[in-house]
Amino acid sequence: MKFNTIEWINGNIRIIDQTLLPVREEYKDIETVDELIEAIKSLRLRGAPLIGVAGAYGAAIAARECMSINIYDEYVDSLFLKIKKIEESRPTAINLKNCINRSKMIINNILNENMPKDKKILADSEFQSFKLKIYDALMKNAIETHKEDEQICEQIGIYGNQLINDNETILTICNAGSLATSAWGTALATIYKAYESGKKVKVYSCETRPLLQGSRLTAYELMKKGIEVTTICDNMAGFLMQQKKIDKIIVGADRICRNGDFANKIGTYTLAVLADYHKIPFYVAAPYTTFDTKAKDMEDIPIEERDADDVRKFQGIQTAPTSVNVYNPAFDKTPNKLVSGIITEKGILMPPFVESISKYLDQY
Amino acid sequence: MKFNTIEWINGNIRIIDQTLLPVREEYKDIETVDELIEAIKSLRLRGAPLIGVAGAYGAAIAARECMSINIYDEYVDSLFLKIKKIEESRPTAINLKNCINRSKMIINNILNENMPKDKKILADSEFQSFKLKIYDALMKNAIETHKEDEQICEQIGIYGNQLINDNETILTICNAGSLATSAWGTALATIYKAYESGKKVKVYSCETRPLLQGSRLTAYELMKKGIEVTTICDNMAGFLMQQKKIDKIIVGADRICRNGDFANKIGTYTLAVLADYHKIPFYVAAPYTTFDTKAKDMEDIPIEERDADDVRKFQGIQTAPTSVNVYNPAFDKTPNKLVSGIITEKGILMPPFVESISKYLDQY
Repeated sequence: MKFNTIEWINGNIRIIDQTLLPVREEYKDIETVDELIEAIKSLRLRGAPLIGVAGAYGAAIAARECMSINIYDEYVDSLFLKIKKIEESRPTAINLKNCINRSKMIINNILNENMPKDKKILADSEFQSFKLKIYDALMKNAIETHKEDEQICEQIGIYGNQLINDNETILTICNAGSLATSAWGTALATIYKAYESGKKVKVYSCETRPLLQGSRLTAYELMKKGIEVTTICDNMAGFLMQQKKIDKIIVGADRICRNGDFANKIGTYTLAVLADYHKIPFYVAAPYTTFDTKAKDMEDIPIEERDADDVRKFQGIQTAPTSVNVYNPAFDKTPNKLVSGIITEKGILMPPFVESISKYLDQY
Repeated sequence: MKFNTIEWINGNIRIIDQTLLPVREEYKDIETVDELIEAIKSLRLRGAPLIGVAGAYGAAIAARECMSINIYDEYVDSLFLKIKKIEESRPTAINLKNCINRSKMIINNILNENMPKDKKILADSEFQSFKLKIYDALMKNAIETHKEDEQICEQIGIYGNQLINDNETILTICNAGSLATSAWGTALATIYKAYESGKKVKVYSCETRPLLQGSRLTAYELMKKGIEVTTICDNMAGFLMQQKKIDKIIVGADRICRNGDFANKIGTYTLAVLADYHKIPFYVAAPYTTFDTKAKDMEDIPIEERDADDVRKFQGIQTAPTSVNVYNPAFDKTPNKLVSGIITEKGILMPPFVESISKYLDQY
């Protein structure tokens, strides 16, 4: 299930502009760090694993932009500043930070191993090849990260498929599909694999206010694949469960703590409470880049708040009084006790999560 | 807290067109039964108690439209057919049916008491005055129903205010305010009375997809009154409760069964489950016209489904793939076990509801 969500073409990151879907399929080339940050902040490029991959490419672009700086300290400062700006473009999804950390480690390794003690004695030509070495290493890493994301998501799908029975109906929120990763997706990967293995599977997609990633993106990609999907407003999920129309809930994640608490698109926590009340299994699907090894529990997750006008207006049309107060968190936090299992590329992690996550992360 | 939501002016029903709020405050005169049905179906006129009042006026308009029919049987058939069409314009809210039933009883009483046994001997002039008598009685009833609704809602506010403490934050959904009744509202009446009595009260208003009555109407009327209101997307309610930002939930109702199960705007059931999980009191506010004396429990409530394009489009702008399947129930059903109490014009009904509701209805 490939969408060309992200590609590296002629030295640019080429993305499908997700703000325009499903009305227009338009591709956009990103050439600079500033363009990348704009694309991430405006959600042209979204989905925790996908912005992780984009961050890795972004680090390489940052190194390219610093190629003309000929003073060592200035080069290093400038490179790390650009990378920091990418890293800070969205605060909740940890994949971006995790991928950027890998890029930073690569840079630091080269700095530490390859540099003469006295930087002043570095000849111009040596400095050039040194900068190129950093660029090449970051580029290689980005391509590997990209490829790895695709393989990992496919594995998530293969494991998740084991949980899905024939003729089941799955509820999901936001978009944790091909469009949120470089291919396959996380939550939707499980559905794609179930479908490919011949199971009849039906999906209800919460539209996911305010930016409607569920109706605009998830419904769109499932329909493209030929999978039966029904769009609902977020406030209809409880009524569906009351009517026993949902067999399982599978969602993505933007950050998973060491104890299994996790952050995901706003509305996920409500679904988890509803699942608990109706005794419906509730699964999270995510790759290792979504785990925050430093976060003990959900107290450690920052929640991004977005613009009030996202709620007050829809594409310029007023949906509320112009000056009304708005609370617009982009994510919420779900405690581990509401999670049935976490579907990863290494298998399905079960409670108690402190142990299963620790064992899982030890493999990296 | 008066809004001129509905008035009887120069022989027409004058309403504020609620589909245009909050962008435009535009009034519309309704002269015919067909115009009334269009206004109810298109939600220019909405809110269970308000469409009950409008139904009472509608019966009078129906009688006016039948004034020129000079054959007895034709007159009676035509009048009841028009009234039936009004009654069926929306299926879930019982107030319309209850108010229409009162109008039908009035007609039947006049038919039974005032008619000579052989209708054929009725002179033309007698028939004229007979039709006028029906019109006058329906008109008088409509004006009384209208006035009564205002008084009843104020009483609901007075009783509901007893539940609200100073500095509390209330969550509500849809619009159960002045705009949903002839004045005061039901759920919002409690907040208006708390505010008027000097309590500091804050409201979170769920925007209420797909038609956004919460952000368009509730936020609008609370702001007009000067009450602090914050709009949220429906999927944010759980996260607010997790953060202990909500002290109470107060909602309206479209139909309450004899056991306390009730129907209200889609999303209400989800709020009730969330309230149960977070141990937040959950109240329903409604007048006696919202009780369905024939409904034993929620199995007896029909749920209206509305147009798929309400979810696929917003004011003509596509929000989902054009042909995606949509499930769009306008209401959901909440079981009595999730209800803390029902705020009525005679006081607050407490569990067990079978008894308290029966005792309450005995007063009518």
